[in-house]
Amino acid sequence: MDLASFIGIALACIMVAGGIVAGGDAGAFINLPSLLIVVGGALGGTILSNPWKRVLSLGQILKKAFFSESPELISIVQTMVSFAEKARREGLLSLEDDAEQLDDPFMRKSIQLVVDGTDPELVKSILDTEIGLLEERHAGNKFMFDTFAELAPAFGMLGTLIGLIQMLGNLDDPDALGPGMAVALITTFYGSLMANIFGIPIARKLTVRTQEEVMTREMVVEGILAIQAGENPRLVEERLKVFLPPKFRKAFEDKEESQ
Amino acid sequence: MDLASFIGIALACIMVAGGIVAGGDAGAFINLPSLLIVVGGALGGTILSNPWKRVLSLGQILKKAFFSESPELISIVQTMVSFAEKARREGLLSLEDDAEQLDDPFMRKSIQLVVDGTDPELVKSILDTEIGLLEERHAGNKFMFDTFAELAPAFGMLGTLIGLIQMLGNLDDPDALGPGMAVALITTFYGSLMANIFGIPIARKLTVRTQEEVMTREMVVEGILAIQAGENPRLVEERLKVFLPPKFRKAFEDKEESQ
Amino acid sequence: MDLASFIGIALACIMVAGGIVAGGDAGAFINLPSLLIVVGGALGGTILSNPWKRVLSLGQILKKAFFSESPELISIVQTMVSFAEKARREGLLSLEDDAEQLDDPFMRKSIQLVVDGTDPELVKSILDTEIGLLEERHAGNKFMFDTFAELAPAFGMLGTLIGLIQMLGNLDDPDALGPGMAVALITTFYGSLMANIFGIPIARKLTVRTQEEVMTREMVVEGILAIQAGENPRLVEERLKVFLPPKFRKAFEDKEESQ
Amino acid sequence: MDLASFIGIALACIMVAGGIVAGGDAGAFINLPSLLIVVGGALGGTILSNPWKRVLSLGQILKKAFFSESPELISIVQTMVSFAEKARREGLLSLEDDAEQLDDPFMRKSIQLVVDGTDPELVKSILDTEIGLLEERHAGNKFMFDTFAELAPAFGMLGTLIGLIQMLGNLDDPDALGPGMAVALITTFYGSLMANIFGIPIARKLTVRTQEEVMTREMVVEGILAIQAGENPRLVEERLKVFLPPKFRKAFEDKEESQ
Amino acid sequence: MDLASFIGIALACIMVAGGIVAGGDAGAFINLPSLLIVVGGALGGTILSNPWKRVLSLGQILKKAFFSESPELISIVQTMVSFAEKARREGLLSLEDDAEQLDDPFMRKSIQLVVDGTDPELVKSILDTEIGLLEERHAGNKFMFDTFAELAPAFGMLGTLIGLIQMLGNLDDPDALGPGMAVALITTFYGSLMANIFGIPIARKLTVRTQEEVMTREMVVEGILAIQAGENPRLVEERLKVFLPPKFRKAFEDKEESQ
Repeated sequence: MDLASFIGIALACIMVAGGIVAGGDAGAFINLPSLLIVVGGALGGTILSNPWKRVLSLGQILKKAFFSESPELISIVQTMVSFAEKARREGLLSLEDDAEQLDDPFMRKSIQLVVDGTDPELVKSILDTEIGLLEERHAGNKFMFDTFAELAPAFGMLGTLIGLIQMLGNLDDPDALGPGMAVALITTFYGSLMANIFGIPIARKLTVRTQEEVMTREMVVEGILAIQAGENPRLVEERLKVFLPPKFRKAFEDKEESQ
Repeated sequence: MDLASFIGIALACIMVAGGIVAGGDAGAFINLPSLLIVVGGALGGTILSNPWKRVLSLGQILKKAFFSESPELISIVQTMVSFAEKARREGLLSLEDDAEQLDDPFMRKSIQLVVDGTDPELVKSILDTEIGLLEERHAGNKFMFDTFAELAPAFGMLGTLIGLIQMLGNLDDPDALGPGMAVALITTFYGSLMANIFGIPIARKLTVRTQEEVMTREMVVEGILAIQAGENPRLVEERLKVFLPPKFRKAFEDKEESQ
Repeated sequence: MDLASFIGIALACIMVAGGIVAGGDAGAFINLPSLLIVVGGALGGTILSNPWKRVLSLGQILKKAFFSESPELISIVQTMVSFAEKARREGLLSLEDDAEQLDDPFMRKSIQLVVDGTDPELVKSILDTEIGLLEERHAGNKFMFDTFAELAPAFGMLGTLIGLIQMLGNLDDPDALGPGMAVALITTFYGSLMANIFGIPIARKLTVRTQEEVMTREMVVEGILAIQAGENPRLVEERLKVFLPPKFRKAFEDKEESQ
Repeated sequence: MDLASFIGIALACIMVAGGIVAGGDAGAFINLPSLLIVVGGALGGTILSNPWKRVLSLGQILKKAFFSESPELISIVQTMVSFAEKARREGLLSLEDDAEQLDDPFMRKSIQLVVDGTDPELVKSILDTEIGLLEERHAGNKFMFDTFAELAPAFGMLGTLIGLIQMLGNLDDPDALGPGMAVALITTFYGSLMANIFGIPIARKLTVRTQEEVMTREMVVEGILAIQAGENPRLVEERLKVFLPPKFRKAFEDKEESQ
Repeated sequence: MDLASFIGIALACIMVAGGIVAGGDAGAFINLPSLLIVVGGALGGTILSNPWKRVLSLGQILKKAFFSESPELISIVQTMVSFAEKARREGLLSLEDDAEQLDDPFMRKSIQLVVDGTDPELVKSILDTEIGLLEERHAGNKFMFDTFAELAPAFGMLGTLIGLIQMLGNLDDPDALGPGMAVALITTFYGSLMANIFGIPIARKLTVRTQEEVMTREMVVEGILAIQAGENPRLVEERLKVFLPPKFRKAFEDKEESQ
């Protein structure tokens, strides 16, 4: 579970809710028709903008944003280095059993390709294509949240316009002016809230997830090609350590020395 | 037919219409001059911004957005693999008859080129150019909807400014202030509605369609070049399965095993 | 003449003018100082933003937007194929006379280079540089209209702010409030009108023109290099037909068969 | 001196000033605190956003925007062609004296490298790096004006908010409402004025200057490499003439013929 | 310490504070709930948008923006040239001791790789990957400030909407209208202040820092590869001097001559 995601969204919600409660009557902020225009309208536009299959995987995408964790880059370095050592000692074929025990399907597939004796250039081409398509799929998912984040305030404003036009067309009772406008503004409030507390941050989190996932896969490709080329495990480590942020690199070296 | 597109646009329309009806007098939202300024102005600007032939193909573009379906990636893999098997068994020339029965003109052309004994590099260059030009044409179509989606709210605001200027220049009757402003705001409402319920989502759907179509064509190119190179059908399958989303890949493998 | 450009701008103008007349007093929309602030300010900023030579070629650029027509891609294919046939039959040198009769200076230059026996790589490099520089020049022209389209509403808002500040600083006569604000808003109206009816659509039309011109030139380069390489006219045709939109391709083939 | 820059900024200033004077009391538009918030705030943010050395070169950058002139592309072609002729006749070393008399340090350096017998690939790599770094430095300068142009209206709005909050918190005297709001709006006016009359157009002019300078340098690189390769002066001319806009090319050819 | 950063932020703060004090009651600008909505909301959204580790390194990132100084490009040239001289005289291995005394870990690592006899292509590949990953990490840090700068005004507007809705829903006391609106506007003020005085300028400063750091590293790579290739120290200097801005180059040459 990615605790930070929950802390972030909870913090934002509490602050807004606190602002509402501190100012008095919270009931004025509940308005079903306004909610329906914003959520229904933005959802409708999002469905129209995206392939149906992507819309259906909404739950899975949200799960990725809130539950998947940042990958342990250090453990990837360690795994690849241990594979490099084993491959050196016992040959590439000896990795077959290890591959089957791996959780990560991309790492498993990479090793399988090498074990199968696939041509190194083809290995690189297949794995790069796979990374490229992963980026494309993820960009599509982000695009869905971007669309929602863009349409929610737009439908919020549409709802406010509807309220204003109805109010202005019927000014018999001046006392109703204020409350009428308050109701009209609630739709704008909903639209902006949904975009800024939900749509925009989640779209950005998905970008972060994609970058993390792509980086781990690039590490696997870099490592597996070096292993296939029969490179020295020491050099494989050198190549992969580059991917660690400086702070981690030190930690990694300390760990190694203490072994 | 792409049901999701209809569901999406219907959902958005119903929500907005519901919001109008719930608030009372729906008649206040019908105003022909406002509609003419927004639709006519944005359409005029769109015609000025685009080549005439593109404007004329509007119906066809809308049809693509609402009626064409997401391609069946799995069936492309299967077709290409079966072609690879046939080519291996009976030679490349044996594909000629199959090519003629294909619906997809791009796949047909690809096979025809290979059957004609065209040089592999030239095959790749011709097919890549074709994909690039498809992307350009589609980008042009999207550009037309983007222009409309950008100009509609702008002309909406122009209409509102016209209304405001006329109203403010003539304030003899204070009772007319509210209704006058209501009428002025309707143009903004129309402009925003047209952009957010129609222009923006359809432009985005067209992007999705382009991505889908480009991907299927890239699969065909990848496959046809492998077939021409006489690659093992098993390897052709491996190359193309990369294009399937992970979920589909599993389905594909299950299907294969059950055969 | 590009009729669509005139139809587009006329449609937008008529709709806005109709909206003004329908609402009553059109005279309220004529205000010289407001017009001067918007046009003068945006023009000044545009002159400051652009090289003087580009500003001077304004007339020519407008002429290109409104009068030049979409190129006849089919006739380019036919010309290049006929050149390929002649070159095959009578040698490359035989193209010299045809080149001199061509209207298009780019096509003329391309053939001249080939007739002069220039090295194919150098031919490609010179022609590609020329296309790249054409794109740069056209991007500069579009940039001028973009600047105008961005500055016009900004100066419109500046004019409105001037009007508002003057009106608010001097509220002795409440009856003057409405008309004062009406006058202030006219500048915003002018700025927005100029951007949306003129600046933005013309900038976009220029983009379309650039794309069309670049594509025809790329066709010429593709064709001329194939001719220089002594390729089969049939193959030259195949290479160039790729550039035609699918619909045209069919028309082209029908035409050929009926010959 | 780049007259157009002065004409442009003067035109915009006069139009705005005229709009102010035409409307009456110009004194209402002078407000020192508002000016300090906008200029001081935007300047502060710009200093924080940029390296100190760049801020210090502000004067030089403004000088470049207002005083440097568009380069004479034709004279570059002529110089390079005359060098090519001399190099052909008297050898590359004969260019050394000419190089020393050149004003342009880039051209001087290019020739010096060739005279020194540097390897062609290294010449290209050094000169390309230099062009790339010039683009980066110029992009940094533009970035400074972009930042100012973005922050000025933002601080303008901040000043207006300050004014509004103070005015609304203290509504005892309704007569002060109008003038108070007028004062508040002046800050927005200043911010928008500074961005649109100064920041945005100058940032764009700097882009134009960069493009011009890069193009002249690319011409020099193209020319010097051809000279080093001992190419025919006629061909050097052909290569460089491509960089001239079509109109100039004709002028160039006429000039040549009349010689 | 980067004095300019402190001067910049202080200048902006003083101007805004001065504007507040000049207008009277500064106490009206302190409102805890408004502050909580803006800071808490924007912080929450930023936490949700970013990986937890990046959020934790906030202090370090701020330190980089405010305390790290622009690198001394000249001293890098001098160091690399002196290494080139030593390597020529005493061989590459003689650099090992110098490397250990270097502060900059990147330069140290570069030399270590060369001393270890790593293949030049691999040296380049490892160092380029490291630079690429540095850019990615820094882009992530900037992204965090961008998110904050985008969300702060959005939550400011949300707070203002909350205030307006509460005020409009309860108009019994017309005297409370002004102050109520003043309070509502404070949230917008906070949001805009935080974005423009803090978020945007710091995000931009981080971009500048990244560019500076990347450039110094590219200089090190360029130099170390030349040293490894055994190039003449004079040529190494020539290659690296290109990276200095023109003004510095002259200073550099003067310095050399005076030695």
